[in-house]
Amino acid sequence: MTAMTTKPRTGGRRGRAAKRATPAVKTFDRAWRQWVRPYAPVEQFSADQIEAIHEASLTVLKEVGIHVMNDEARALYVSAGMTEAPGEIIRFDPDALMELIAKAPAEITLHGRGSDRQVTLGGKHVGICTTGGTPNFSDLQGGRRPGTLASLDDFCRVSQAFDVIHMIGPFVEAQDIPPSLRHFAMTKSVLTLTDKVPFVFFRGTEAVADAYEMIRIAQGLSHEEFAETPCSYSVANSNSPLMLDLLMCRGIIDAARAGQVMVLTPFTLSGAMAPVTIPGALVQQNAEALAGLSLSQIVRPGAPVVYGSFTSNVDMRSGAPAFGTPEYVKAAFASGQLARRYNLPLRSSGVTASNAPDAQAAYEMQMSLWGALMGGTNLLLHGAGWLEGGLTASAEKFIMDVEMLQMFAELFKPLEVNEDTLGLAAIRDVGHGGHFFGTQHTIERFETAFYSPLLSDWSNFENWTDRGSLDATQRANRIFHDTVAAHEPPPLPADRLEEMEAFVARRIAEGGADIDR
Amino acid sequence: MTAMTTKPRTGGRRGRAAKRATPAVKTFDRAWRQWVRPYAPVEQFSADQIEAIHEASLTVLKEVGIHVMNDEARALYVSAGMTEAPGEIIRFDPDALMELIAKAPAEITLHGRGSDRQVTLGGKHVGICTTGGTPNFSDLQGGRRPGTLASLDDFCRVSQAFDVIHMIGPFVEAQDIPPSLRHFAMTKSVLTLTDKVPFVFFRGTEAVADAYEMIRIAQGLSHEEFAETPCSYSVANSNSPLMLDLLMCRGIIDAARAGQVMVLTPFTLSGAMAPVTIPGALVQQNAEALAGLSLSQIVRPGAPVVYGSFTSNVDMRSGAPAFGTPEYVKAAFASGQLARRYNLPLRSSGVTASNAPDAQAAYEMQMSLWGALMGGTNLLLHGAGWLEGGLTASAEKFIMDVEMLQMFAELFKPLEVNEDTLGLAAIRDVGHGGHFFGTQHTIERFETAFYSPLLSDWSNFENWTDRGSLDATQRANRIFHDTVAAHEPPPLPADRLEEMEAFVARRIAEGGADIDR
Repeated sequence: MTAMTTKPRTGGRRGRAAKRATPAVKTFDRAWRQWVRPYAPVEQFSADQIEAIHEASLTVLKEVGIHVMNDEARALYVSAGMTEAPGEIIRFDPDALMELIAKAPAEITLHGRGSDRQVTLGGKHVGICTTGGTPNFSDLQGGRRPGTLASLDDFCRVSQAFDVIHMIGPFVEAQDIPPSLRHFAMTKSVLTLTDKVPFVFFRGTEAVADAYEMIRIAQGLSHEEFAETPCSYSVANSNSPLMLDLLMCRGIIDAARAGQVMVLTPFTLSGAMAPVTIPGALVQQNAEALAGLSLSQIVRPGAPVVYGSFTSNVDMRSGAPAFGTPEYVKAAFASGQLARRYNLPLRSSGVTASNAPDAQAAYEMQMSLWGALMGGTNLLLHGAGWLEGGLTASAEKFIMDVEMLQMFAELFKPLEVNEDTLGLAAIRDVGHGGHFFGTQHTIERFETAFYSPLLSDWSNFENWTDRGSLDATQRANRIFHDTVAAHEPPPLPADRLEEMEAFVARRIAEGGADIDR
Repeated sequence: MTAMTTKPRTGGRRGRAAKRATPAVKTFDRAWRQWVRPYAPVEQFSADQIEAIHEASLTVLKEVGIHVMNDEARALYVSAGMTEAPGEIIRFDPDALMELIAKAPAEITLHGRGSDRQVTLGGKHVGICTTGGTPNFSDLQGGRRPGTLASLDDFCRVSQAFDVIHMIGPFVEAQDIPPSLRHFAMTKSVLTLTDKVPFVFFRGTEAVADAYEMIRIAQGLSHEEFAETPCSYSVANSNSPLMLDLLMCRGIIDAARAGQVMVLTPFTLSGAMAPVTIPGALVQQNAEALAGLSLSQIVRPGAPVVYGSFTSNVDMRSGAPAFGTPEYVKAAFASGQLARRYNLPLRSSGVTASNAPDAQAAYEMQMSLWGALMGGTNLLLHGAGWLEGGLTASAEKFIMDVEMLQMFAELFKPLEVNEDTLGLAAIRDVGHGGHFFGTQHTIERFETAFYSPLLSDWSNFENWTDRGSLDATQRANRIFHDTVAAHEPPPLPADRLEEMEAFVARRIAEGGADIDR
C-alpha cells in the first residue's frame, strides 16, 4: 500500500516548517485502541425494577404505539406482525417485538480504513467517538462562530492524533458548503485526514448512499464485502415522544440494507419530551429504542444496531436542557441494565451544558463519563469536544476530554498482583524512612508505571507561575493548535482517492443529494 | 438553649446591611446531612488478590516492623504481644495484631454541637469534611497568600452554609497566630462560626488536651460524657515508609484515651515513599495503617478509629506528587476492599495537583471523588477547597467542590419505581409529539424532581453572554463571598462561650501549649 500512497490535498496547506513536535501524543498502546471495562457495571435498579420498566415500555408500544411517518416503514412493521392504526400509528405485538430484538447481534466489530483501527462494541468492549452535529465551533482565539469545512478539518486532524479516539463524529456542520453537497465534503475530510471509523448522517437515502459509496471506495472493498463489513455508524433519533420521522425511518432502513451500524437514540429529556420522573423517562426511552431497533431487524435480521440512551433532564425553571446531572448519571446506569437485558450494545454520551470550556464543562463531562463508562456503555458518543449542550464543538474542551479519556483508558487497565508487584523485596530494601526513588524495583518500572498526562500540569506553584500561570483551558488551546500543525494525513492509496474524487465529481454534476427524503 | 445564645464576636464584624441573600443555599434535606451510598462498591481486585496484599502487609509488619519513635507507644505494643528490636523497631505478631484490629468498631457516630449535626461513618454511611492543613489560601481578588485567622474564619462561615458538609477540616494554617497559641484560635473559630464536627491537630499532648477541653465545653458535656461521645476527629499520618513519629504516637494514644476519633493515614506516594507498583504501595499502606490502628486498640479496646487511605503516585520525571490520577482511583477502590476486609470505616480524600481552580482542578477532583465514593469510603477528607496538592485552600475551588458534593448527594438518593414514577398515564396523556411541561404528572413534581445547581449555569449562550460570560471560577468567587457575607453564627449558649474563653485565657496566661511533645 505504501508505494501507492499520496497525500490528500487538504493536508498540504501547512509546510514542514510549521509542524511542531507534540511529545504529549503517545505512541501505540493496545489498551488505548480497544477499551475493555474491567469493573462490574454499576446498577441503578434491582432486577425487578428493570423488569417493571421493560413491561411498562411494552405496554406503551402495544397500547399507545409509535407514530411512524414513512409508508415503507409502516408496511415493514405490519409485515412483521405489528398493527397499523389511523394516524400512521404502529402498535406493537410484544412477542413479535422481542423476537425481532433477539435477532440483533450482542457484539459488533467496526472497521476503520487504517490498519489496526477496528473497534469492537458490546460486552465489556467500548469504542470512543468524537463529538458531532454542532452548528458552531469555538476556540480562545476566535470565540464561538458558525462551523466551516476548515474547522471540521482541524478537528479531524486532532482526532487522528489520539489513540483513545476510535471513531470520528461529524464534529461541526460545514455551513459554508450547500446542504445538498455538504455530505461529500464532510465525508471526504474524515476519510482523508483520518483513518478511523466515519459517521454517516441520516439526511435522506441519496446522501446516505453517497457516503456509503465513498467509504466503500476508501476502504477498497467490493460492494459485496462492504455489505458484510460494518465500517460506518449513524444515529437515528426518535422524535420524542413516540415518533419516528421520515428521515429516521429511511436511515434505519438504508443502514440495515447496507449492513452498516445504526444507533437508535431516543431524545428523552425528562420533564420536556419525556415524563418528569427518571423511571418514566426510561420507560419512554426503552419503548422508542425497541421500536426503532426492531425495524432494522425486520429489514435485515442480524443488522448491527446499538441501543442508544440520551436520557437527561431539563431545568424546570427555564426548560433548558441539563447534562452531566445526577439524574443523567442514574439514567446512564439504568440504561446499561436495560441494554444488557436485551443483550445489545449500549450507546451513551459525554456531555455538558456549560457555555465555556471551564470547570463546569470538566465536572459535568466527568459526571457523564463515569455514568456512561461505569454503567457499562459500549459506545461513547460526543467523547471529545462537545460544549454548550451540543451547540458548539470546542477546541479546548476537545483536549480536556482527551485527557479525561486517556485517564479512563489507563483506569481500565487491570493491575497484576504477584510477587514482583507486591514489592516486598523493595519494602525490605528501603526499610524505615528513606525513599524508593533509587531502588532497582523503581528503576525497572518508572518509565511506564504511571499515566503521564497530556494537559494536566503537576509542577509546583513557582514553576507554574514562571511559565505564565496558564490555566488548563489556555494550555488546552496550545495543545490543540500544536496538534493540528503536526498532523500527517494517514496513507490513502492514490487510486482510491482518485476513484472517490471522480465519484464525488459525478454526483455533484448530477446536482448532489435530495436531503429531504 | 435559644434564650441563652449570643453571637460570637468574630461574627459581628459585618453589619446587617452587608448581608445578602444566598438563594442557592438549600434548606434542610436529610439525604444531604447523612449520605448513604446506594450502590455496591466498585472492586479493583479479586478476593484472592486482596488476601495476597493482606498477607504481604503482615509479613512486612512481622519481619521489617515499624520504627516507633515514642517510648510509651513501644511499651504499649510490647504489652500487647509485639516484639521490640534494636533501633526502636516494633515487630508485630500477626495473630495478636488481628485480634486488636477486630476490637475496633465498624461504625462510628460523631456528634457536632448543633442539633441534627451528628454523622455516622461506616457501612454505607459517609461523612464529608472540608479541606485542612494548607499553609496558604487563595481567591481571585488577592491570589495566593499565607493563611490567616481571618481567612480561616471565612472558610468556616461558608462551610456552615452547606448541608453536604458535615465535618470541619482545619482549612488554612492561621500563620498570624504563634504556633503555641494557634490551636486556641483555630478551634474557637470552628466552634463559634460553625456547629459541625471539629478537627483536632495532633500537635502535642497539651494542644490536643486544650482542644478537647474547648470542644467539651462547647458541647456542654461532662468529662465523663465527653469520654464516651466522639465529637472530634484527628488524623495521624505515618511517616512513610514504616515510621510512626513522636507526635503521631502521642496523638494516637491521647485520642484513644479521650474516646475521640483517630484516622490513621499512611502517606504512601507510590514511587517516592512507597513502592512504584500500586499493589506494593497498598501493602505498605496496609502495614502502616494496621500498625497505627492497633495502638489505639491497645490503649482502649473499641476506640473509634478509621482506616485511612491516601495512596497516590508521583510524577516520575519530577518527583512531584500527583492526585486524582488513574492510579489514585485504583488505590481508592482497593482501599475500600481492604477496609471492608477488616470491618473498619474507610477514609479517602478529594484531591488535585492543579495550581488554579480551573478545569484540571475539577476533573482531578471528580476522579478522586468517584474513586473514593464508589470505592466505598465512609469519611471524605478534603471534600471542599483543596488545591495545589494541599498547599492552598481556594475559595473558588471550595464552591466548585460543594457543587460536586451536592450532585453526589443527589446521586446517592435512590429512585423509586412504582406506578406513579413509571408515568404510564402521563405517557398516554401526551401521546405522540407534544411535550410534558403542562401535564399534571409534571406539575405535581417539577419543583423537586431534579437537582437545582449552585454553581452550574445552564442558561443559553446569549443569556450567559449578556450576563458577562462569567466562567465557573468567576461565578464561584461571587458565591463564596456572598455566602461569607450572609453568614449567621449558629447559636452557642452564652455560658459555654464564657467558660471556653475563660479556659483559653487561663491557658494563654500559662504560656500556651508545648507543641513539640
